[in-house]
Amino acid sequence: METTAREIARKLGGEIVGDPEVKITGPARIEYGRNGNICFFANPKYEHYVYTSKASAILVNRTFVPSQPVAATLIKVDDAYQAVAELLSYFQSMKKSRKKTGLLHRLFGQHRIGRGTHIGRGTWLGDYVTIGSGCKIGRGCTIHPNVSIADNVTIGDDTVLYAGAKVYSDCVIGSRCILHANCVIGSDGFGFAPQDDGSYRKIPQTGNVVIEDDVEIGACTTVDRATMGSTIIHTGVKLDNLCQIAHNVEVGAHTVMAAESGAAGSAKIGEYCMFGGKTMVVGHISVADHTTLAADSVITKTVRESGQTLMGYPAMDSKKYMKAYVKFRQGGEKEE
Amino acid sequence: METTAREIARKLGGEIVGDPEVKITGPARIEYGRNGNICFFANPKYEHYVYTSKASAILVNRTFVPSQPVAATLIKVDDAYQAVAELLSYFQSMKKSRKKTGLLHRLFGQHRIGRGTHIGRGTWLGDYVTIGSGCKIGRGCTIHPNVSIADNVTIGDDTVLYAGAKVYSDCVIGSRCILHANCVIGSDGFGFAPQDDGSYRKIPQTGNVVIEDDVEIGACTTVDRATMGSTIIHTGVKLDNLCQIAHNVEVGAHTVMAAESGAAGSAKIGEYCMFGGKTMVVGHISVADHTTLAADSVITKTVRESGQTLMGYPAMDSKKYMKAYVKFRQGGEKEE
Amino acid sequence: METTAREIARKLGGEIVGDPEVKITGPARIEYGRNGNICFFANPKYEHYVYTSKASAILVNRTFVPSQPVAATLIKVDDAYQAVAELLSYFQSMKKSRKKTGLLHRLFGQHRIGRGTHIGRGTWLGDYVTIGSGCKIGRGCTIHPNVSIADNVTIGDDTVLYAGAKVYSDCVIGSRCILHANCVIGSDGFGFAPQDDGSYRKIPQTGNVVIEDDVEIGACTTVDRATMGSTIIHTGVKLDNLCQIAHNVEVGAHTVMAAESGAAGSAKIGEYCMFGGKTMVVGHISVADHTTLAADSVITKTVRESGQTLMGYPAMDSKKYMKAYVKFRQGGEKEE
Repeated sequence: METTAREIARKLGGEIVGDPEVKITGPARIEYGRNGNICFFANPKYEHYVYTSKASAILVNRTFVPSQPVAATLIKVDDAYQAVAELLSYFQSMKKSRKKTGLLHRLFGQHRIGRGTHIGRGTWLGDYVTIGSGCKIGRGCTIHPNVSIADNVTIGDDTVLYAGAKVYSDCVIGSRCILHANCVIGSDGFGFAPQDDGSYRKIPQTGNVVIEDDVEIGACTTVDRATMGSTIIHTGVKLDNLCQIAHNVEVGAHTVMAAESGAAGSAKIGEYCMFGGKTMVVGHISVADHTTLAADSVITKTVRESGQTLMGYPAMDSKKYMKAYVKFRQGGEKEE
Repeated sequence: METTAREIARKLGGEIVGDPEVKITGPARIEYGRNGNICFFANPKYEHYVYTSKASAILVNRTFVPSQPVAATLIKVDDAYQAVAELLSYFQSMKKSRKKTGLLHRLFGQHRIGRGTHIGRGTWLGDYVTIGSGCKIGRGCTIHPNVSIADNVTIGDDTVLYAGAKVYSDCVIGSRCILHANCVIGSDGFGFAPQDDGSYRKIPQTGNVVIEDDVEIGACTTVDRATMGSTIIHTGVKLDNLCQIAHNVEVGAHTVMAAESGAAGSAKIGEYCMFGGKTMVVGHISVADHTTLAADSVITKTVRESGQTLMGYPAMDSKKYMKAYVKFRQGGEKEE
Repeated sequence: METTAREIARKLGGEIVGDPEVKITGPARIEYGRNGNICFFANPKYEHYVYTSKASAILVNRTFVPSQPVAATLIKVDDAYQAVAELLSYFQSMKKSRKKTGLLHRLFGQHRIGRGTHIGRGTWLGDYVTIGSGCKIGRGCTIHPNVSIADNVTIGDDTVLYAGAKVYSDCVIGSRCILHANCVIGSDGFGFAPQDDGSYRKIPQTGNVVIEDDVEIGACTTVDRATMGSTIIHTGVKLDNLCQIAHNVEVGAHTVMAAESGAAGSAKIGEYCMFGGKTMVVGHISVADHTTLAADSVITKTVRESGQTLMGYPAMDSKKYMKAYVKFRQGGEKEE
């Protein structure tokens, strides 16, 4: 697989500074770039690598003005970070596809499919996959080995379930979703009625999980089914690994939650929010759209004003938190 | 599936205010209730829905006195929240059971069972289940697809293992337990002896895990085997998703731990405790019965007095924590 | 299985105080020791058990001087805690091995192996294992049921993958590693380019994960593949359960991370570090060798000086943190 800086610039609508004919064989991180690599530079912290890199080409912002001589061919684009997604997709599409055809594998593979289940054209099933009865699986899906899908599950088109993902009965998953290995969709919500003797009686969790289109769910992430109704993950949401979404939670469209985050029962998280790792939203509250939550912070009350950046436990304005923390820290410095 | 308000009131020992003959087809959350639904109202925060709901019937506490006219039929019970568990069980039992008979499936299903393993009557095995040698599996269990149970494991009656649950050798699981998808029981404790060169030598984890009756274990929750002896989860404990129970921990009867909680090695947690999400108990300490721990808090010292509510890191009395946090927060407000 | 205190002392290079011929049938924790058991005592907190234990022998440090009469035979060694690893290995090796031969199982077991994959001699494959095409699996490995290994994966010799572990394509795993049940290696990094409409475009994750020799990975722990290049877990690293290692992270040799810890994208963690449970390192920073991080703490800035003990969020010197926390706590005690 070989291309040129000129060809890449053409794909990305970029402008070339340097030799357009330089051969490019693949992408690399700027600190590891060698002959034949194309790298990208967007974070100012890494500028020195631009001048020392052995890469053949570097993708940069159109506004970038080198302060020293650059050996590599530069490809200037409007937004180097955004262009990387396209660049990597381009290289990935040049690799020969390893996907087997759905039909052949359906004849010779090992898997079990229940009665009344319909599987769309071009969907590939890995070995030891089980799909219950009454399911509708769309076209062009890839269902990796050891996935289990229970009864009456609906999945849209072109969705990928990686190895070991589990989907409980009655859940609905949209199109173009990616569910990573060993994630669990539709497990029972954590609902128990305390009895007079201090023990608990299980409250049946009779609802389901609805995941809309273009959602990505991380490895070992769990999304519980609703007690009644649906736990809803709206369009375009991205959940990282090891996140927990409790029963009856609603996560608004295009919200992203980093690893090990959680939302407790019936929390309603707005659209376009960005949550750092290990964050939490307590139950039965709402969080406004465009809320940013710093890592390891906990929202404990409804957030009505959109666009805030919060931090701490209970979460407060992040600048105030850092200011308060400076004083807290001074308490440990002073001599007594 | 159709019933009436009268029939439900009879089941729950409730009193009817309004039309007893109204048709009920299923439960719903009060904010989404429509014609044919029965809803419940217990949290005062949601009272306004009682007056606007389109549900046909609403389950309320006997003490509830409406302040406005109510269109729905009211069913008054002693404790509406407790009655919901019964109500949902009632609707669930009315759905036709989808459970296959154990015998048929044992003849035609795909699974592998080791030598000397006994499986009780009426136990259903999903596809691609593996059970090692020398196991005793009770009656009426449901073992979903892709579960692996290693050698010499004992499981009681009527226990459910959802898809992908894994049980290491020598573990003991009681009756009427529910193990959710992709949980792991009996993995090695995290024990390593530091060597003179700074590397670590693995300490063999030769014990097991004992889970008593009526325990529920969440999806992707992990319970490590003991170094020697047993890690013990006592009767009626409920662990939410993504919790971590380390080697030689003991969790007392009827204690509940919300998602992403953890207990470090040899911690001994009392009975009837309630731990919020993302909480932690450090190793080698004890926590008294009836301790409540607020979300995202860490108990670092033995708690001797029972019935306390703790918060923070290190955890302290929760009211004092909140008071201290108010002062901390003021540190971020003041102008300098 | 029966041995004597004399035989064990010989194995461990220990010195006997008491009856060398006392029969030993197995190990136990000191608080549960009975006739026939050997226990160990290293933590001063448990000294009273030395005088009350019903165990037949107790392993103690050579420096230990009993303050009361001891019924058990003492075996004195340089470091009782280190000797336990050897002691338990000794007892484990005396149990008859249950491992089936690789060859027989490869003929009669249920598993699927892709084209061009080579599996070394003596490697055992459990049922319902899938291995993709182009893989190289070393000798003497144990691959438990329901493991899935995708295409072009390389695994060294004597590595163990417990049930349900998943390895994505192109990853490299060393020799003598232990991957616990339901862990996930090589899932996509959490990388998305924000688009002008607020939605996200997936950045293809084209790199892999490299795990060097003698690494242990806990149950349900996830290690993401690099965007470009490799996420690297160096020799001897021990990751506990439910940890998250993000894309392009590097974890230095012989570093240990307790359960539910995480490292965000491109973090570089040094060698010989010790991280407590629920800790976190934010993205794009470095942490010096020999750093100790208290439980539930977050490192937010590059740590240059090695050997520090840090605590809090943002993490600071642990002694200063505790001193500052004392003042914080006082804020909750004072009357206003």
